[in-house]
Amino acid sequence: MAASSSKPVPLLKDELDIVIPTIRNLDFLEMWRPFFEQYHLIIVQDGDPTKVIKVPEGFDYELYNRNDINRILGPKASCISFKDSACRCFGYMVSKKKYIYTIDDDCFVAKDPTGHDINALEQHIKNLLSPSTPFFFNTLYDPYRDGADFVRGYPFSLREGVPTAVSHGLWLNIPDYDAPTQLVKPHERNTRFVDAVLTIPKGSLFPMCGMNLAFNRELIGPAMYFGLMGDGQPIGRYDDMWAGWCIKVICDHLGLGVKTGLPYIWHSKASNPFVNLKKEYKGIFWQEEIIPFFQAATLSKDATSVQKCYIELSKQVKEKLGTVDPYFVKLADAMVTWIEAWDELNNSAEEKTTENKAPVAAAK
Amino acid sequence: MAASSSKPVPLLKDELDIVIPTIRNLDFLEMWRPFFEQYHLIIVQDGDPTKVIKVPEGFDYELYNRNDINRILGPKASCISFKDSACRCFGYMVSKKKYIYTIDDDCFVAKDPTGHDINALEQHIKNLLSPSTPFFFNTLYDPYRDGADFVRGYPFSLREGVPTAVSHGLWLNIPDYDAPTQLVKPHERNTRFVDAVLTIPKGSLFPMCGMNLAFNRELIGPAMYFGLMGDGQPIGRYDDMWAGWCIKVICDHLGLGVKTGLPYIWHSKASNPFVNLKKEYKGIFWQEEIIPFFQAATLSKDATSVQKCYIELSKQVKEKLGTVDPYFVKLADAMVTWIEAWDELNNSAEEKTTENKAPVAAAK
Repeated sequence: MAASSSKPVPLLKDELDIVIPTIRNLDFLEMWRPFFEQYHLIIVQDGDPTKVIKVPEGFDYELYNRNDINRILGPKASCISFKDSACRCFGYMVSKKKYIYTIDDDCFVAKDPTGHDINALEQHIKNLLSPSTPFFFNTLYDPYRDGADFVRGYPFSLREGVPTAVSHGLWLNIPDYDAPTQLVKPHERNTRFVDAVLTIPKGSLFPMCGMNLAFNRELIGPAMYFGLMGDGQPIGRYDDMWAGWCIKVICDHLGLGVKTGLPYIWHSKASNPFVNLKKEYKGIFWQEEIIPFFQAATLSKDATSVQKCYIELSKQVKEKLGTVDPYFVKLADAMVTWIEAWDELNNSAEEKTTENKAPVAAAK
Repeated sequence: MAASSSKPVPLLKDELDIVIPTIRNLDFLEMWRPFFEQYHLIIVQDGDPTKVIKVPEGFDYELYNRNDINRILGPKASCISFKDSACRCFGYMVSKKKYIYTIDDDCFVAKDPTGHDINALEQHIKNLLSPSTPFFFNTLYDPYRDGADFVRGYPFSLREGVPTAVSHGLWLNIPDYDAPTQLVKPHERNTRFVDAVLTIPKGSLFPMCGMNLAFNRELIGPAMYFGLMGDGQPIGRYDDMWAGWCIKVICDHLGLGVKTGLPYIWHSKASNPFVNLKKEYKGIFWQEEIIPFFQAATLSKDATSVQKCYIELSKQVKEKLGTVDPYFVKLADAMVTWIEAWDELNNSAEEKTTENKAPVAAAK
């Protein structure tokens, strides 16, 4: 490089949006300033749209409240949850970027074992830009990391890997436990820094948490629907789980990779386990049937795009989970609405730009 | 406890044998003395049986050379490799214990990031005595470790886990690379201590390394056959890989778990990559067909024991891999011979004791 500017240009600066669902002022961004300030933020305001959300000075952002969502999507806004952080997926839909990083507003910068601040976004980008290895397990974890490789016995034909669609990051301090575990172990904290990134093997489902999550929107975006949760719905806290089951089945079908492990964020605040139990308890029953459903789900050869996969999956949800509870019939319909809305906003690059810039709050 | 002896009794002291294949004096045991001294060792001497292998004072061991193997197994000794560390599986067969730990004689005690010596055997025992979770991935790794648990969204019906059959440990310093990778990266060292144990999901194969490996002999012993390698065979360095593919298919079928990760040992010496290439090169071709074969292998409902599974697998090897090379026909026959020999030595507890104690070298 001939000359360097005072601030180095961060990775994928113009190709990544940071999506934050929130109901409060975003003071938590202060801690993230060195890592997020040069990126564009999409803030999805949950709950009362008349409330003013304060964003610290210097961040480049657009903000959508419920009124914006209703105006942009019209009747299709019914697929976006209200009073639940599941609303974040609206941000995935209106983004124009190739990559998304989404983070909760109670997540702070964690430190690695040497005491240095962890640049979570940078690690997610590394995860997304290097391939995944879903077809065979590598015992030294991500073979593309510095100082690692494929071990003896790893087939050479599989060493090119497959494109990575999703990077699932973890949490130090408050672990992402369900309400029963929170109740039983109120004082448990995650203090174990596991210095690994790994591909979740093909055919294996995992509990995807939306707190610290990045993905390639072009590869998997239309499947990153966080379902119907919160206000008017019988369930909460399964938004990211739902998306996780769907994206994994679709990634497996399309030959895409899902990574988990690094980076860690510092999760500051345990949510109320009693409130959580109320939100979760139906899910605790239902997941016993939902997971076998997803484990057995297969998609047809015609399902060659994420959208086609997702529509196929929605039909299977209606048919096979509709008998578990009528909620799943509604959810299956919402999955279709979501895809329609996604395609409406994303089909033409020109259209998109005009349509979506309208409700954007001016960046400071 | 009312009183404690001067030396604490190690875990599973009378239920575990340490199996070491070697061609040289076992000076490496000096470093392991604090961790191994109270256990029983089974040393399988490879190569020239007239050579005397020196074992440091104070270790309790039995030693088998090729003459012993021939005498004990008679014509069935043909299934035990000669001039290859694959001969170690003879030690699994003659053991009377429930658990086996096997380690190479170029492996030393590693240090954890705080500088403390790692008791590899103790960690393996912890891995084997806690369940595995092959049916759903837990993002905080082994949920049974202190400070960890199942995360939100993990089905409660699966939290009991399944019995763990195999614990696969890793290596600091010299990584277990194949010859081509050794040639390309002669200076690469593994310095990353990943503080994790995890279950390899059902349906996913992995490259099992025999350098630092523990297993439950009662659960999976008869499938831990290290194949035909070395002298008179067209291939080497695939002994542990072969066992790894077989045990994983059988564990998946029988609902048993395979863990990988901790503990680390310090692998001191890179083997010669040129020699390795000669041993490996057919395997590098063959594994491209072997792995799809194992990925597709299914066992019948009648295969309710490890032995039955293994015999079924041997038939499939003969039928489907026999076309790859005549070697696999010979290997399939050896798999059957191995099971016959295993059953002969292990069918009756009385018989076993008499038969197997015969060739034991006196412990010092």
